[in-house]
Amino acid sequence: MRATVMHGAGDVRVETVPDAGVVEPTDAVVAVTRAAICGSDLWPYNQMEPSDVGRRMGHEFIGVVDAVGADVRKLKVGDLVVTPFVWSDGTCVLCREGVHTSCLHGGRYGSDGVDGGQGEAVRVPQADGTLVVLPVEKDDALMPSLLTLSDVMATGHHAALAARVEPGRTVAVVGDGAVGLCGVIAARRLGAEQIILLGRHATRIALAKEFGATDVVSERGEAAVERVRELTDGLGAHSVLECVGLDESTATALASARPGGAVGRVGLPQEESLPGSRSTFFENVAISGGPAPARAYIEELLPDVLEGRIAPGRVFDRVATLEEVPDGYRAMNDREAIKVLVEL
Amino acid sequence: MRATVMHGAGDVRVETVPDAGVVEPTDAVVAVTRAAICGSDLWPYNQMEPSDVGRRMGHEFIGVVDAVGADVRKLKVGDLVVTPFVWSDGTCVLCREGVHTSCLHGGRYGSDGVDGGQGEAVRVPQADGTLVVLPVEKDDALMPSLLTLSDVMATGHHAALAARVEPGRTVAVVGDGAVGLCGVIAARRLGAEQIILLGRHATRIALAKEFGATDVVSERGEAAVERVRELTDGLGAHSVLECVGLDESTATALASARPGGAVGRVGLPQEESLPGSRSTFFENVAISGGPAPARAYIEELLPDVLEGRIAPGRVFDRVATLEEVPDGYRAMNDREAIKVLVEL
Repeated sequence: MRATVMHGAGDVRVETVPDAGVVEPTDAVVAVTRAAICGSDLWPYNQMEPSDVGRRMGHEFIGVVDAVGADVRKLKVGDLVVTPFVWSDGTCVLCREGVHTSCLHGGRYGSDGVDGGQGEAVRVPQADGTLVVLPVEKDDALMPSLLTLSDVMATGHHAALAARVEPGRTVAVVGDGAVGLCGVIAARRLGAEQIILLGRHATRIALAKEFGATDVVSERGEAAVERVRELTDGLGAHSVLECVGLDESTATALASARPGGAVGRVGLPQEESLPGSRSTFFENVAISGGPAPARAYIEELLPDVLEGRIAPGRVFDRVATLEEVPDGYRAMNDREAIKVLVEL
Repeated sequence: MRATVMHGAGDVRVETVPDAGVVEPTDAVVAVTRAAICGSDLWPYNQMEPSDVGRRMGHEFIGVVDAVGADVRKLKVGDLVVTPFVWSDGTCVLCREGVHTSCLHGGRYGSDGVDGGQGEAVRVPQADGTLVVLPVEKDDALMPSLLTLSDVMATGHHAALAARVEPGRTVAVVGDGAVGLCGVIAARRLGAEQIILLGRHATRIALAKEFGATDVVSERGEAAVERVRELTDGLGAHSVLECVGLDESTATALASARPGGAVGRVGLPQEESLPGSRSTFFENVAISGGPAPARAYIEELLPDVLEGRIAPGRVFDRVATLEEVPDGYRAMNDREAIKVLVEL
């Protein structure tokens, strides 16, 4: 079968790889119908050391169950399913506590002999715990929005929950990438009154406004923090969504929260230490977040997508075939595209 | 009047200072009957640069209202009152949001012309917002426990709330000082099932066990984290209370939390950055806390003290007169005493 393999920074190839097949009795094999390129895929795209073997890529996909192992109970061949971006058993103590990303028997796509999602098919371990059946046909017009439940919309939702968004709160979203845009959707969905987007790209800002952003701050660093304060009676935002992960954006996020406020961080942290330990302490600013337990959120968000209350699929502004995936990476890295949808 | 003045590291004196008096119409003057020395007073006791003027000390006290300004409505001369460790108006937006420590019109005892609590009397600004009337006589046997509502018990409670303690959760308390001991009380009060104290002092450990600690870990650093994991099915504690503030104790606290867990930090941070940004991110560990909004907690905790359900006053293991306060600092600094009560 064909699948995406990264061999080093800037070196993404679509290659012939061994066909996906059931290995463990808890596996399912899914024939991918839609996949996506993630902002987090751009970190190795910029930094990966050259590798002959390469790394299988992709962790967001929808597809049709093609085969199931002997112990799979909840899925059958022919089911259309969406996956969260990590697999998890759904039964261990940490899954039961809602932290599926730390599942005791879970793991990541593209490593340890598990396929990546940017390919024709994927062996999904712990299939019963991982996959969610979708009650639509495989070419339904909702596919882009349903696909965002794999990661980007779940991640925006996680940021909003971690930042304690609730009705009437003021919210700042740091970052206008696909995650930040989904953070705007999530904040609006949870009832935020004021949603300030920190971003600089005109097309993304326009989309953010359609999603519910009420204000835009295009400054950076201290100037951005000042603008957020001006927009919030001098106090800062109740809830801040950190959707970038760089040291500067994290410092901006922490400083943009008002006393007693909360920062939800979902941008992959690029530094080992958090800035502002003392300032956040003295102002009782809470810091939480991490990889979104998307599996916990899919069922919660699915009705809103199916009934059209949210349309996160609009973050996809380019469609590619599988063979065009390498150019999709380039387009996202060059900021030509917000997020690329792969149709198989 | 007589009051405690610190003139530099190790140099605490009781001196004659100007009498406390009403300055603003929102002031009350309180004749102090009980005061305390705080663990946080030991930071300047170890580090303060020499100063001729010196610094008035103390922020925990109970006393009798001796005079009120023209705008004070809720207090009258003769009322017995307890103060939270900072003063606040109780009406600004941040007080209404429960962050009295960041009150827009608040401040700290011992600075800006406001007396410290380790003295015969204190001018209390924003008296209506700050002081809470106690429904007991001034020499009631409950005085030590009531006095802890000023700071140390409220701080332990804040740590437990920030660490999301609730029934059935496993809790680790880092630090066996008076705050850590009150953290044990708070965790027990909120229904924690397992409470692991990280500490090394036999008398404090004994008291922690009486307060509800179920396990004790006397290792430090990585070894302590390993022990906490062993005691929690290899996962770490749901809730970790950081009651020290040093870099090492903070790192231990963050690493002791299980995936999806929460760290409530109340130890004054001695470093500018937080260790473990990436590890806490990947495990979705929440970090919150700061100076306790004691004013928000006094009314909640008061019935438990009055009705004997909690006895945090037991953290006081030494009583001093005002003139003996300098020796009280020495005793706490030398770990001879957990916490010193001052009787006037």
